[in-house]
Amino acid sequence: MNEKLIYLDHAATTPIRTEVLDTMMPFLTSKYGNASSIYSIGRESRIAVDNARIMVSKAINAENKEIYFTGSGTEADNWAIKGVAHSYKGDGMHLITSTIEHPAVLNVFKSLEKEGYSVTYLPVNSEGLISLDELKAAIRPDTIFISIMFANNEIGTIQPIADIGKIAHEHGIIFHTDAVQAAGALKINVREMNIDLLSLSGHKLYASKGVGALYIRKGIRIETQMIGGHQERGKRASTENVAGIVGLGKAIELATTELESNTKHLLELRDLTMERITERIPHILLNGSITHRLPGNVNFSFRFIEGESLLLMLDMYGICASSGSACTSGSLDPSHVLLAIGLSHEIAHGSLRMSFGRENTVEDVEYLVDCLEKIVTRLREMSPLYNKAKCELE
Amino acid sequence: MNEKLIYLDHAATTPIRTEVLDTMMPFLTSKYGNASSIYSIGRESRIAVDNARIMVSKAINAENKEIYFTGSGTEADNWAIKGVAHSYKGDGMHLITSTIEHPAVLNVFKSLEKEGYSVTYLPVNSEGLISLDELKAAIRPDTIFISIMFANNEIGTIQPIADIGKIAHEHGIIFHTDAVQAAGALKINVREMNIDLLSLSGHKLYASKGVGALYIRKGIRIETQMIGGHQERGKRASTENVAGIVGLGKAIELATTELESNTKHLLELRDLTMERITERIPHILLNGSITHRLPGNVNFSFRFIEGESLLLMLDMYGICASSGSACTSGSLDPSHVLLAIGLSHEIAHGSLRMSFGRENTVEDVEYLVDCLEKIVTRLREMSPLYNKAKCELE
Repeated sequence: MNEKLIYLDHAATTPIRTEVLDTMMPFLTSKYGNASSIYSIGRESRIAVDNARIMVSKAINAENKEIYFTGSGTEADNWAIKGVAHSYKGDGMHLITSTIEHPAVLNVFKSLEKEGYSVTYLPVNSEGLISLDELKAAIRPDTIFISIMFANNEIGTIQPIADIGKIAHEHGIIFHTDAVQAAGALKINVREMNIDLLSLSGHKLYASKGVGALYIRKGIRIETQMIGGHQERGKRASTENVAGIVGLGKAIELATTELESNTKHLLELRDLTMERITERIPHILLNGSITHRLPGNVNFSFRFIEGESLLLMLDMYGICASSGSACTSGSLDPSHVLLAIGLSHEIAHGSLRMSFGRENTVEDVEYLVDCLEKIVTRLREMSPLYNKAKCELE
Repeated sequence: MNEKLIYLDHAATTPIRTEVLDTMMPFLTSKYGNASSIYSIGRESRIAVDNARIMVSKAINAENKEIYFTGSGTEADNWAIKGVAHSYKGDGMHLITSTIEHPAVLNVFKSLEKEGYSVTYLPVNSEGLISLDELKAAIRPDTIFISIMFANNEIGTIQPIADIGKIAHEHGIIFHTDAVQAAGALKINVREMNIDLLSLSGHKLYASKGVGALYIRKGIRIETQMIGGHQERGKRASTENVAGIVGLGKAIELATTELESNTKHLLELRDLTMERITERIPHILLNGSITHRLPGNVNFSFRFIEGESLLLMLDMYGICASSGSACTSGSLDPSHVLLAIGLSHEIAHGSLRMSFGRENTVEDVEYLVDCLEKIVTRLREMSPLYNKAKCELE
């Protein structure tokens, strides 16, 4: 086993930042009160949860009462989509989303189709962008809801969210965005962008796993998903995960403060990686957009090889990366995102996502590219497809 | 503010045990891999989750593949009830539960009534026990599901779970129990007790908030509640809360090992408390059963005073206790459980729950009773109701 650990899978999960864990620790030890209890250690928990709510609301320019904590980004997505669809059923049963959403969105829409809703899945272009004209054309009198992700988890493509929000509101349609990859990485302003609901997740922005949040604009009706006690102003029952919530608040506050410097750092690593790989490895394809791209995301297809083999070999060099997303790994199907941007099954299978984080360095990039070059060369030497193609080219 | 802290609200939440936090810490720091990732730190997370699953399954005599981790006990209850009701709708739409369930159960049934299901809410006797004869009488040809809590969170009454399971299975009915208060405190054997689904929560048994589990007997169909990625064998999407899950596994393993000694300890404290309060404070009423009672639960009504005032005064003495449950505190309604066992509004309002835990001592009990005696006397002196009653008695 290699001693080195170069973690390039921040889109799958991030380590908890030290400053974040420090704010969580009291609530994992002495400050264990239930936030619904009226005695002192209960009130301390309540205050901590409310402070975290303010931090999350400030990060996206919402009001604090518009933030509801959940157990995950998946829960936030499920709640937003099912909750709004069910509440506004009387106004229409047509919904719009895209073909490249995360499974926590896409599979919820598929389940709503079984309930009788009609869903338009907007296609994307080769960069992974939806077309605003196609969005407008898809809108019907019975369209009640649009859900388009802020930035894609696999290829990093950033959608024109403010334009989508404007179109939605011009037609009186409620607009949700899955911002699990964007929160903490991009500037988000729910008021300016006309966003009505927004999902985010703690463990994607250096807080802990098991906590997320849903922003619900004041006035939006939403069916309760987690039924029970009176927590979260009666809208989301369950004893509050105080430590997780406090960590999420701290993490998003730090991300907001450091957004500019962190973006600069990630862009440097991302662009260097893209440059080096393009220089040194032939028969490759950059997936996603060059201009509308998350600062930490790199995604390449390496022709004639399997992404899984690439991952396993990288792991032997101590490098953590991903093919497709962690949420669908373990599946043999090629990524639905890569197919949606027009890749063949064969090329999609040879894809690799590298997602950088705040602790990565230029040295990590150099080491990555050295290893990648060696591994890709070796795997291609073993590939019958490559040898066949080589013969044809010669 | 009092320096002393006597925590007597373990039914609301428990501190995380040191041994449990120790097992969690690596997964909050260096071992941050996503359990779905195939590289080494991902596989470490996967193994840790699977080990925790084995520990939970052993504690209740289930198979490890029958355990599904959730974000809370509330989520487990919601999933069990809605998931089974929806999946077996074709076989009938009649459901049975009790009037004293936790809101995470009771309010889910109320929402199912709006969907067209018919629900029988079994009454309880003055001890909080359902009647097996009334259960049998309530069963109809279209009854598909029974949900009765293992032990009550407010008054600690333990239901005849094995008998209920037997009756359910004799009629081919699926049986769920909310064991959030029982898990870790009572012996549970899902096979012998004919339990088909069982909910439990981490933070009630010295693990962290934000994690729970649902046992689903092999062969039971259940609609997915959290839709998205392939986690939990495709049945519950969401990146696994590895640290929380690992802690839950450790906590339930410890609870199982120490069940006998811990029960002995809690019974001593509980019985001493009941004895001392009965000796020293007049005009009181013990709520719940003497024989079928959680070892750590004490619940008394103190006539002529308000539970809220009692709580606030106890807090000034550094004592944490509860009136009703944490999940309904903040509400002005008297506890639905206390009303269900036949208490008047006035007497229900003067109730106090003390729930003991492993770190409580006999000294805590003596201090509690000293404080209680002083506080109750003082509050009664200020109470017009008490003075009126005293005049009438004299």
